[in-house]
Amino acid sequence: MIKVGIVGGTGYTGVELLRLLAQHPAADLRVITSRKETGVPVADMYASLRGRVDIAFSDPADAPLADCDVVFFATPHGVAMSQARDLLAAGVRVIDLAADFRLRDTAEFERWYKMPHACPDILEQSVYGLPEMNREAIRRAKVVGMAGCYPTSVQLGFLPLLEPVAGDLVDPESLIADCKSGVSGAGRGASVANLLAEAGDSFKAYGVAGHRHWPEIRQGLSAIAGRPVRLSFVPHLVPMIRGIHSTLYARLRPGAADVDFQALYERRYADEPFVDVMPAGSTPETRSVRASNMVRIAVHRLPDSDLLAVLVVEDNLVKGASGQAVQVMNILFDRPETEGLMQIPVLP
Amino acid sequence: MIKVGIVGGTGYTGVELLRLLAQHPAADLRVITSRKETGVPVADMYASLRGRVDIAFSDPADAPLADCDVVFFATPHGVAMSQARDLLAAGVRVIDLAADFRLRDTAEFERWYKMPHACPDILEQSVYGLPEMNREAIRRAKVVGMAGCYPTSVQLGFLPLLEPVAGDLVDPESLIADCKSGVSGAGRGASVANLLAEAGDSFKAYGVAGHRHWPEIRQGLSAIAGRPVRLSFVPHLVPMIRGIHSTLYARLRPGAADVDFQALYERRYADEPFVDVMPAGSTPETRSVRASNMVRIAVHRLPDSDLLAVLVVEDNLVKGASGQAVQVMNILFDRPETEGLMQIPVLP
Amino acid sequence: MIKVGIVGGTGYTGVELLRLLAQHPAADLRVITSRKETGVPVADMYASLRGRVDIAFSDPADAPLADCDVVFFATPHGVAMSQARDLLAAGVRVIDLAADFRLRDTAEFERWYKMPHACPDILEQSVYGLPEMNREAIRRAKVVGMAGCYPTSVQLGFLPLLEPVAGDLVDPESLIADCKSGVSGAGRGASVANLLAEAGDSFKAYGVAGHRHWPEIRQGLSAIAGRPVRLSFVPHLVPMIRGIHSTLYARLRPGAADVDFQALYERRYADEPFVDVMPAGSTPETRSVRASNMVRIAVHRLPDSDLLAVLVVEDNLVKGASGQAVQVMNILFDRPETEGLMQIPVLP
Amino acid sequence: MIKVGIVGGTGYTGVELLRLLAQHPAADLRVITSRKETGVPVADMYASLRGRVDIAFSDPADAPLADCDVVFFATPHGVAMSQARDLLAAGVRVIDLAADFRLRDTAEFERWYKMPHACPDILEQSVYGLPEMNREAIRRAKVVGMAGCYPTSVQLGFLPLLEPVAGDLVDPESLIADCKSGVSGAGRGASVANLLAEAGDSFKAYGVAGHRHWPEIRQGLSAIAGRPVRLSFVPHLVPMIRGIHSTLYARLRPGAADVDFQALYERRYADEPFVDVMPAGSTPETRSVRASNMVRIAVHRLPDSDLLAVLVVEDNLVKGASGQAVQVMNILFDRPETEGLMQIPVLP
Repeated sequence: MIKVGIVGGTGYTGVELLRLLAQHPAADLRVITSRKETGVPVADMYASLRGRVDIAFSDPADAPLADCDVVFFATPHGVAMSQARDLLAAGVRVIDLAADFRLRDTAEFERWYKMPHACPDILEQSVYGLPEMNREAIRRAKVVGMAGCYPTSVQLGFLPLLEPVAGDLVDPESLIADCKSGVSGAGRGASVANLLAEAGDSFKAYGVAGHRHWPEIRQGLSAIAGRPVRLSFVPHLVPMIRGIHSTLYARLRPGAADVDFQALYERRYADEPFVDVMPAGSTPETRSVRASNMVRIAVHRLPDSDLLAVLVVEDNLVKGASGQAVQVMNILFDRPETEGLMQIPVLP
Repeated sequence: MIKVGIVGGTGYTGVELLRLLAQHPAADLRVITSRKETGVPVADMYASLRGRVDIAFSDPADAPLADCDVVFFATPHGVAMSQARDLLAAGVRVIDLAADFRLRDTAEFERWYKMPHACPDILEQSVYGLPEMNREAIRRAKVVGMAGCYPTSVQLGFLPLLEPVAGDLVDPESLIADCKSGVSGAGRGASVANLLAEAGDSFKAYGVAGHRHWPEIRQGLSAIAGRPVRLSFVPHLVPMIRGIHSTLYARLRPGAADVDFQALYERRYADEPFVDVMPAGSTPETRSVRASNMVRIAVHRLPDSDLLAVLVVEDNLVKGASGQAVQVMNILFDRPETEGLMQIPVLP
Repeated sequence: MIKVGIVGGTGYTGVELLRLLAQHPAADLRVITSRKETGVPVADMYASLRGRVDIAFSDPADAPLADCDVVFFATPHGVAMSQARDLLAAGVRVIDLAADFRLRDTAEFERWYKMPHACPDILEQSVYGLPEMNREAIRRAKVVGMAGCYPTSVQLGFLPLLEPVAGDLVDPESLIADCKSGVSGAGRGASVANLLAEAGDSFKAYGVAGHRHWPEIRQGLSAIAGRPVRLSFVPHLVPMIRGIHSTLYARLRPGAADVDFQALYERRYADEPFVDVMPAGSTPETRSVRASNMVRIAVHRLPDSDLLAVLVVEDNLVKGASGQAVQVMNILFDRPETEGLMQIPVLP
Repeated sequence: MIKVGIVGGTGYTGVELLRLLAQHPAADLRVITSRKETGVPVADMYASLRGRVDIAFSDPADAPLADCDVVFFATPHGVAMSQARDLLAAGVRVIDLAADFRLRDTAEFERWYKMPHACPDILEQSVYGLPEMNREAIRRAKVVGMAGCYPTSVQLGFLPLLEPVAGDLVDPESLIADCKSGVSGAGRGASVANLLAEAGDSFKAYGVAGHRHWPEIRQGLSAIAGRPVRLSFVPHLVPMIRGIHSTLYARLRPGAADVDFQALYERRYADEPFVDVMPAGSTPETRSVRASNMVRIAVHRLPDSDLLAVLVVEDNLVKGASGQAVQVMNILFDRPETEGLMQIPVLP
């Protein structure tokens, strides 16, 4: 059994981790911390966990995290990097669901997150948590910075097009990601903007001038392409709870007009358990992956244009966060990668 | 392995059965029929099942249902009773999710469902599918008429109060069930009334003059009480997908003023794996049971009155339909009753 | 023109007042205050008002409220009573949308609102703002304490039954109000409980042990009946933005079995411009009054019982708050009562 | 008073026309037809119109449409063109909310709508109903083919960029319209896909291979630009009732890098009563125009790219359909263009 700790379990990625880990046959949930909720049984906060998770929140100050095999950070940005060194010293693997170990460049991190990076040396040896892109590096990692929710969908959508092995198929200088997310992506903090009476029955863009996931996606796509890419990223807020739909646009190189993109995608993801390339002509719905770790992708040549559109759906709390973190845990501890993650999506 | 057939799997109770059975370790899904979708792979209709259910819909005319151990009917009313005799003759158990085997009295059935009953003799030996009420009878049944969605919540809510063993606690002549359901309860048929543009962002009562679940609830409560009860039942439509919330009112007998109802409910349901009596003062949310087979109940003495209010939440498609049907299958085939049904609710 | 001021216009009742007053032919909006938003143009906060409301929020400290003919308080409880005396001295009428002038009994006020009442003498001469109940008193009032959202629907629903003139039709000791409200009723404050990711796609009761609208409703119904009534009140939260649906239950006196309740309601409300008694058998939807000042009511004799069910729908922000406040303004200033309030409901 | 008739008033554009016309000071609603609902009072179908619209649906066969000054067609495609000739002969103006008079090219019409055009001669003299683009032509028209919902938002968004007067600002060969619509855009027909249980809490693209609004938009943009444009159009379905959000992308010409696009848009729309150019940096919400005839637009230079993003919101049933049709009626009959259309948006 893998001894598991969670730091900061009161938000949505925290409760989703709990849902998944409580059903995971190899996970032994030992400790979960919350400064504000110290002493409160987890199931008092989330009735959905009554009878299934019987521990209480511990005080972060004296929680026995060092006795765990792995600690998940489901915290605001900045927490994981302040605790990683001690945990590593104790031999604990660290999986951060926040942004502390996402951006390779500390200057970029500091620009977007408005805080100095606490441990550039650990950052350097950390690995980016997107298994379909760098599974082998994850296998050897001590610290994993999990991919963000938008970045997971955008990178998986563009990946087969940009890998050098695919040839020079699209213009890497004019990529567009028009992304739409349910409101749970904004977290469980009290905020006027995400009230049902504000965000319900309405739709809007946000973060057009610059969103923190933008540098992360560029970094990832550039790594995939082996050269810098340019990307425009426009996120939108959808009046639903879970789900991300990314509509991706890429301009085809003249020579790529006859490429069979459907086959390219199917081939690339043939062995990936959590990426489903839909039949040609499909338009995947976010609910088709609700509460599951699956990503579904459809590829469309747009008529009367040189554009390829890639439609990607994921559950932002599962493949976009906690599910993918459990997938990484499975890889880190040599478990079957799908263990504990084969829940069928909930539809309707 | 239990060889399973499903008749009529294109509706919401059908796809929910598929979700549950595809994850059930002892169920071997052999055949699923649909006249309209014959030949269509199930996963083409429900993308959520891609890679998880690989059979196609069969023509009902020649589907090998008689080779199954059990056949679920997720059909409109009237279908199960027309096929039950042949299946029983072939030694197949029948679990009907529609109303053919709910009402004991054929006259009552004909009054509410506007069709003659096709097999009163089979109806007589059939058993009502509400395990918390009549588990032992189910164990020996050949045909089970599953409890309806509203009736499950209302009967489980009133049961501890009405059982003769509880004593004469409440007035059985003045029960009220003010019930609220998400729209999936209305099924997957095309209808104007259940369009998102009609039922969304609105709330209404319906069926006030008489709803088909009313005689079923009365029958069940009368059986529980061992005497006729009178019940007023007002269902309402909530702009959400899944979930039923029943707010039940019962008038206390003068002598019951000092009864500890919290303890009564906790005691009654102590051994029930799918009924969770919440702490005193709770107000359960439907999402706390979303996509799970749990029912959660809270009991309140209302201030300045002689009323007891019982709040009951269930997922209408799981405990209110397909989950409870799988629970009955487990009982029929001597499997652990919770097998394949321990999914943790999806929240948020 | 009526010179109008608003104190505290940043919440939902505030923006709804602005929507209605900006379209009111006799209202001249002079000043609106907000401590936090001083100097911010109102239309910067609510884009819906761009081009329609061109004033900015004023500092409450020096806003020229005393120059207005009427001041609306769309504030938290406790603000209106602290400013009423000065405004009255300046000859300004006060319309409070909060609770400061709802409860006649200061002890009751202090028990439910946890603060001493600042001006019992003014409370004594204030009038309760429910025109269908006490229009004439309003006409002569200097201070009006507007009826709450739930209380408006419950009182209008029970009123024809309880008025002494109706005779002894129902048992006033066993009334039940099972009420359902959209989330805008909880206001625009940042709160976790009302996030779309929390309150969306779910349903629950709340405030079962005691809600502040309960004493207000009892007071109103007792005034209507001319004797104390007993009422059980169970509010619920619906995943929608606007709308209240109250399902009211009353036990008929044996002698009332043959009363034509449909006719009783139609007669009682025949001259009321904002109360629509629906045809017999109707089940009104909240959307049928969305964004309008109408209330719609349907009356049902429940089968096999001695219960009458009354279904009432209103828009909680209009007839349940700001619309009714404008209606009261019209009465106070001898304008046609429907002036500025005849918007047709928005459906779908 | 303008004598008004409506053909086919049972759908969403029909009820919205009724809401607007019933409040229009110069409209005299004489007749509304529906084959299926002949004889049914309009207010029996839409409770929101009780007390406000007192006519019943007439049989189309003998409805006195020829006595009207103007007839709106809120019908499926193909109806208006079959009746236009007779109405024109009787001197009646025709405003078609369907597609019969949108596409100039009958071959294009036949390709997309799968029916021959019944009156190419009338089509030739008809005018496209988008006042901000061709107000003067509308003024002299006998038949107006109203712009579709998506086309209104996309054309108003691109118009200032493409007009020759603006100079050669963007590449007209690589325009992208990533559009999102609420479900009322799909109409009030019974359909599984638009059930709340299907379309709720989910998001998807549709019509990627070709949507009927695509040729209409290309035709309009080409007319605006004075040369053929190429456009990619990807519509999506949002789980909300009303509202369209179009996210438009255009590639800037190298010479346009320093253009002040904010000023360009403000100047172009300075005199348009229904187009609101938001302050720089804004991200308009669909709810900011809910139930109103306003369009709000924001213009963004995207960072690190040569793209301009234009965000456009409208209410698809008002400016995208019935409101714009009333605007056209006002123009046709020399009324103030805003008459009856100044409702403030409903928020929240």
